[in-house]
Formats: sequence, C-alpha cells, structure tokens
Amino acid sequence: MLRFVVMWMCLPVFLLAQEKQDSLTIRKIYNYHLEESHSHQNLYDLCKNVGARLSGSPQAAKAVEWAKNAMQQAGADTVYLIPCQVPHWVRGSKEKGQLFYQGKKEDLSVCVLGGSVATPKQGLRAKVVEVHSFDELKQLGETHIRGAVVFFNVSFPPTYIHTGDAYAHTVKYRSGASLAAQYGAVATVTKSMTTATDDYPHTGVMHYYDTLTTKKIPAFAISAAGAATLSARLLQNKNAELFLFSDCATLPDEPSYSVVGELRGHEFPNEIMVVGGHLDSWDLPGSEGAHDDGVGIVQTIEQLRAFKKLNLKNKRTLRVIAFMNEENGTRGGEAYAQVAAQEKNKKHIAALESDMGGFTPRTIGVEAQGDTLLYYKKWQPLFEPYFVLIKKGYGGEDISRLVALGVPQFDFDPDSQRYFDFHHAANDTFEHVNKRELELGAATINAFIYLIDKYGAYKK
Amino acid sequence: MLRFVVMWMCLPVFLLAQEKQDSLTIRKIYNYHLEESHSHQNLYDLCKNVGARLSGSPQAAKAVEWAKNAMQQAGADTVYLIPCQVPHWVRGSKEKGQLFYQGKKEDLSVCVLGGSVATPKQGLRAKVVEVHSFDELKQLGETHIRGAVVFFNVSFPPTYIHTGDAYAHTVKYRSGASLAAQYGAVATVTKSMTTATDDYPHTGVMHYYDTLTTKKIPAFAISAAGAATLSARLLQNKNAELFLFSDCATLPDEPSYSVVGELRGHEFPNEIMVVGGHLDSWDLPGSEGAHDDGVGIVQTIEQLRAFKKLNLKNKRTLRVIAFMNEENGTRGGEAYAQVAAQEKNKKHIAALESDMGGFTPRTIGVEAQGDTLLYYKKWQPLFEPYFVLIKKGYGGEDISRLVALGVPQFDFDPDSQRYFDFHHAANDTFEHVNKRELELGAATINAFIYLIDKYGAYKK
Repeated sequence: MLRFVVMWMCLPVFLLAQEKQDSLTIRKIYNYHLEESHSHQNLYDLCKNVGARLSGSPQAAKAVEWAKNAMQQAGADTVYLIPCQVPHWVRGSKEKGQLFYQGKKEDLSVCVLGGSVATPKQGLRAKVVEVHSFDELKQLGETHIRGAVVFFNVSFPPTYIHTGDAYAHTVKYRSGASLAAQYGAVATVTKSMTTATDDYPHTGVMHYYDTLTTKKIPAFAISAAGAATLSARLLQNKNAELFLFSDCATLPDEPSYSVVGELRGHEFPNEIMVVGGHLDSWDLPGSEGAHDDGVGIVQTIEQLRAFKKLNLKNKRTLRVIAFMNEENGTRGGEAYAQVAAQEKNKKHIAALESDMGGFTPRTIGVEAQGDTLLYYKKWQPLFEPYFVLIKKGYGGEDISRLVALGVPQFDFDPDSQRYFDFHHAANDTFEHVNKRELELGAATINAFIYLIDKYGAYKK
Repeated sequence: MLRFVVMWMCLPVFLLAQEKQDSLTIRKIYNYHLEESHSHQNLYDLCKNVGARLSGSPQAAKAVEWAKNAMQQAGADTVYLIPCQVPHWVRGSKEKGQLFYQGKKEDLSVCVLGGSVATPKQGLRAKVVEVHSFDELKQLGETHIRGAVVFFNVSFPPTYIHTGDAYAHTVKYRSGASLAAQYGAVATVTKSMTTATDDYPHTGVMHYYDTLTTKKIPAFAISAAGAATLSARLLQNKNAELFLFSDCATLPDEPSYSVVGELRGHEFPNEIMVVGGHLDSWDLPGSEGAHDDGVGIVQTIEQLRAFKKLNLKNKRTLRVIAFMNEENGTRGGEAYAQVAAQEKNKKHIAALESDMGGFTPRTIGVEAQGDTLLYYKKWQPLFEPYFVLIKKGYGGEDISRLVALGVPQFDFDPDSQRYFDFHHAANDTFEHVNKRELELGAATINAFIYLIDKYGAYKK
C-alpha cells in the first residue's frame, strides 16, 4: 500500500483518472481550511464569549444559542434544536483540600468530581489511606479503611502510545467511592487522569453503585503534583489528616437541546451523514472547554461552510450536530437516536464524531472490520500526503447511541500526546489549541465525508 | 504493507521469529524513553542553566562543557572535543524599530538578522517600500527604491502540510539586502518566517552577495503582527517613515568545539554510526534554543544511556555528536567531516540528525532511493505501532558535510505544525516542549539506530 502510494505521489500519470480528480478535490479542501477557515475564530468566540458550559448551566443555554447562530452563519439550509432533559449538577464555590501534619497545614489542589455528593457543611477531616488499586483496597478491608479518606494514587501509565488507552485503564478510579464506602471510608481522593506533572486537578464524571452500597461519600480529584506531595507526606506522617470541603449539589434535571445544522442532499436527500462533537464542557473555573470539545464543535460546523464555499454539492444530506450533555449523561445523543429511529423514510449511512482535541490528524477510525473496513481503506492513498491513516476505530460517545440502529460509526482521532495535559482541567483554554492543528483536523474530516458523500457507505 | 502490518498486530504468530524479537526490543526501547529517560531533565538543565548559545558567545563555551559532562553522565566510553573556528557575530543591546506617520510614533517588533551590519550610530530613518517578491523589487527599480527601506512582506504559505516546505520557499528573503542595496535601498525589513500571527520577531542568518554589490545595508526581521501593522499603516500613509537601529557587530572568529560521545562497538568497532544535533542556538533575549536544537542534543545524548541501560550491546560504534555552529556557519560539521576523512581505518555507515524540534514522531527520512530506500523500508512494520513512517528524506545540515565521503544520511522528522511558532524566536523555551513528544522522538531515533546497528547499512 505504502509503496503504491509513493509511486502515486511521484507519478500521478499512473493514477486512475477518478483517483486523480479526488486527490485534487481533497487538496482544495485542505487549502480551504488552511487559508480561509472560520474554525479558529469560532473557537475563540465560543471559548471567550461563552466559556465553560456544563449541562444545565446558563452558559450551556448560551452555547445552544451560539451554535444555532454559528450554523446559520456557516450556511446551513436549516438549523433546528432537539430537546433533551439534562442532569444539573453544580460544583458550588468553595471546594478545598488541606493536609494537616506535625502541626502544619498545607493546601492541596483538589476538585470535587462531577456527580459527587457534597461534604458535610463544616467539611470533613480524617486520616488518609493510600491505595494503588481496587484489589489493594479490598485487601486492607474495613479494619483499615473505616473512617478514612481513601487516596487512589494510581499512575496514568506513560507507555501507551495512544494516551486514550491509559485513560481507559485508569478512569474507573474516579468511581471508586461506592467500593470505598462499603468498607466505611468517608471520602475518596483520586489522582488526576493526566500525562502532565503539573498542579491542575482534572475533573470528570463519577458514578455511585447502589449494588455495592447506597451510602454516598464525596469523591475528589487531586492534581498530579498534589498526589506526589500527599504520597510523600504520608510516608513521613502516618497520622496526617486531610480536610476536604465541597458544597456541590445535584439539582433537578433541566430542559436543554442539541443543535442540528443541515445541508440537504442534491441526489439522495434521505441518506443522512452525521458529523458532530459535543457542546457541553466541564466547569472548572478558568476552563473554556477548548480541546474538549469546542474543537469538535467548530471543526464540524466548518463542514457546512466548506461544502458551500467549495461548491461540493453534497449528494446526501449532511447533518452537523452539536450534541448536548456528553460529559455527564449523553442525553443529547440518546434524544437524537430516538429522533433518528422515528425517521422511517430516512437512512443514516454514516456518523462521525470529533472529540479527541484539536491536534495534528493521525487517523480516521472506522468502527468495522473485514470487507467493510477494506472498503474505506481503499481511500488511504488519497490521505497519504496529509499523513492520515484510515484504520479500525471506535466511533464516539454521542453517536454510539446510533449503533442500535445499525449506523456505521467513524471517529476523527488526532495525535493524542498532549490531550490529557488539558482534559477536564482549568487549562483547557483557547490558547492551548494550535490554529494549524485545528484546521488540519477539520480538513481531514471534510475530505473523508466528501468521499462518503461521493461514493456512499459500504454495502454488502 | 499497511494491510500486512494490521495482520501482524492482530496475529503475532504469523510474524517471523526475528521480526517478533525486534518488535519486542523496540517496545522495550520506547518504554525506556517514556518511563526512565533523562531527556526532559537534560533539556531543562541546558535551557535554564546555559540558555541561548550563539557561536562564539560565553554561553556557547558553557554549552560545550555542559554537553561533555552530559555525555559522560549518560555513559559514553569516551568523550572528546573536535575544534573548529566559528564566526562571532553579536547582536548588541539596543535594536529598535519605530514607525513615524501623521506626527505619530509607533514601536514595531523587529530584530536584526544574524550576520547583518549595524545601522549608523544614530540609527537610520527613511520611507518604506513594501514588496512581495524579488521580481516586484526589480520592477520598481532604483527610481522607487533609492534611499528607502525595502519591506519584504512575503507570506509564509499555510498550505504546505510540512511547514519546512513553506520555510524553504521564503527563507531567501532574509538575504534580500544585497539585491535591495543594488537599487539604493538603505535597509531591509523581512516578515518573520513563521506560521504564527503573534508579535515575536524571528531571527536567522542572512547573507550578502558581493556579486550583486559590495555595499552592505542592515537587514531586519519584523514579527508577523508587526508586518500586518506596517502594511496597514503604509496603505494609509504613503509618507510614513521607519526608524531602525542596531549596534550589532561581526567580531574576529573564535575557537570553539563540537562534542563527541562514543559507545565502542563490540563486533565492528570500526563501523561508525553518527547521531547528532547542534549545540549552538539563536540568541534573542529570552530564547533558550529549546526546540532548535536543545531537543536534538538531549535526544541524541539519551541514545548513550539507553543503549547501556537496555544492554543493547551495540556491535558498531555509536558516535553521538553535539555539533557547534549549525546556525551561522556549519563549521562544526565541516571540522568533523575533515576528521572523518582522515580516519582511514574506519567507515561511517550512517549519519542521522535531529534538528526539527521536539514534536510527535512522524517520519524517519532516508536520503536515498531505489533498492537502498527499500532496504530500510523493510523495517516499516516495526514502526507501525508508533505511527512512524520510513520514507525518503533529507539528512541534516551538520551531517551534510559527510555526503562527500559517501556516508548514508538520515533524519528524524517529527510533526512540523508548531515548529515555526518558535523557530529562532524569543519563545523557543523549555516550556514549549512537551515531555512525551520529546521522549517519543528519542525512542524513534533509538529504535532505528538499533536496527542499523543490528543489520548494518544497505550494501549493493
């Protein structure tokens, strides 16, 4: 394959006319995004004028209006909202972590995890038991755990080349509260899921498991630097105590919306291609939800402008969807799947999600194997000039609700090395997104969607 | 090829035993660099304790001592210096650019380019003629140019996927002074070679061409933001004047050194593998020469530690070279080539340079084609898990002096999207190098050198 591609790049005369035409169109697509795209300006606007936007918040409502307007500006034929009821958890204002040892008091960078219960009004203060796995917690058992704060000091393994794999192996520790409570713990503190060694705590959703215990204890995250400090202090001071405070709360569900912008197909308007990201973001003060997932929102909205500006005349209907509530409920994805299930006269031929940040393109993931995967891999030579691989992938959280309807799943998966430096943390800001990397991502999605529109999805 | 690789990843049993063993060793190499490497700490030390280090400066001398010590610490059998006489150009302290229009005065971010002559002691003030190419300058000719500052406002084309190609197309405008002087210009100001739109001027070497004129006029760079401002002002104010000042100077050549650290080969000690970067860096206040090329220095020094720590027992002699004076003379590369030419009993089988920054690995470049290129491409499957392509490449500036001796040239070429955000500018600092990206680069070089050591270079 590679050898063929090298030939193809050196000797275009060998190319099939059709492949040559596609390569020229794809070059135009990349040029558009690198020269004229509004993605970077849109990201600035979303980050600075809307900011962090957790489901149920006023900023999330503002983001819905923002996305509706941005899709209209981008040239959608029609823009509409799909309602959903979303969870409404609020962080509160005064979360705090302090270590007490040898008469000293030391602040630690912590944040309460999304969905957690609050501490008692006066906070809680208790000894700390450090563990490195659920098994270690079970072995220690009630005699050691009762009355303690359990500190899940689990390293984010650096040896996975794709950092998402490290996340998949460690994220469960955010939801260790029920297991800890089973043994009488009063709270949990989990090392942040990050490759960085800085002092930013990283939030994210946590779950309680009634099957283990109905007792709910507060669950916090601590920064990587804070985890190292805490572990070192505990080695020296067995009787060190941690003070934790949060006044977070879970309020009644709120009405909200996903935003859809369509470009009607010229030949097969009932064949639907979905491209989307999620509009909600985590909520730590200072965060702007830039990489997660402002990037996916502006990259997919830009598809509308590019199809029109380049006069690509999509045969099939392009639906750009800004999904609400990916971070703590996926209610937007569920509501859209229900709508799609009711559109009896329409057929979804593809759904692609961008939710891995605004980094240099690496792969387009195809959630398929065998002949289906090979059908899309035939397009690989067209992506070689852009260093993009087409390979087996995973789809995305929001579009995963369409799997039951048999909708083929695709993902845009850029280079992952820096993603967890910013993921769910206060430093996920516009300034940490590189303009070219953002634009190359949008161009890669555009090129792949163009080919699906032109040749259709795999048919048995 | 790709298809084979996917099979290979799914079904290791299909692998040749030898390929399987190599894949396991390469996995160990990547793990070492991601878990135990000293690269990031060494980069911190070089950036913060030595800093910017232009040839001939006291910091460059300090860098030589630093590299010698770092190679000894990394476990080199022998460390030695190779002397060279280097140019000694100094920036001076008070460079300045100011635009005068409609009775207003506006500071612009400029810096004088390396090798330029100074302005008159009192500075110079003149009208500005904006051009976008050498052809435009020639068309305007002496009637328009005499007595003016020529402003080369040439865009850094965003559509090249590899940003180095954009650089190759625009860098010549740094050396437009002699052509401008031919038509009577008093100075040149060239838009910085960058993909960014910020206010950092980017320096770099400029050359005068006696064949055009022996008259030397000062040559400045202006930031991208400054260039946009200047261009906008000139549209409104034809009579705007630019004031420029620099007290830079070219002093007599200075003695300096490249630093070599060797690991003697266990079977073929007279076969030499060179891996290196350049020790000197540009000099703008605040710059630390991090990406250019502190990264190449620490990545290649880490090869010594990794070969020992992993007990790879190199058959051939590994020479890690910190070359002096790549930025404005390549005297270190020349001096080394002279040494190599005199080592009659030794044969250089490979030279690899890392001088494209500390970004996520993309390709190992092989400066060859035909059967030679295919020989190295056979190793492609081993690099698929790390998203690294083996393809035709260019070698590097320092090792290019070995081409005349028939030494095969290789380069490490990481993702290039962010390189020119920092290249030769004051923001080329440690903080802008991501630890994982740096380490993955060192691991990729290590894996490729391991294979060259094991299987040797291509033989006809």
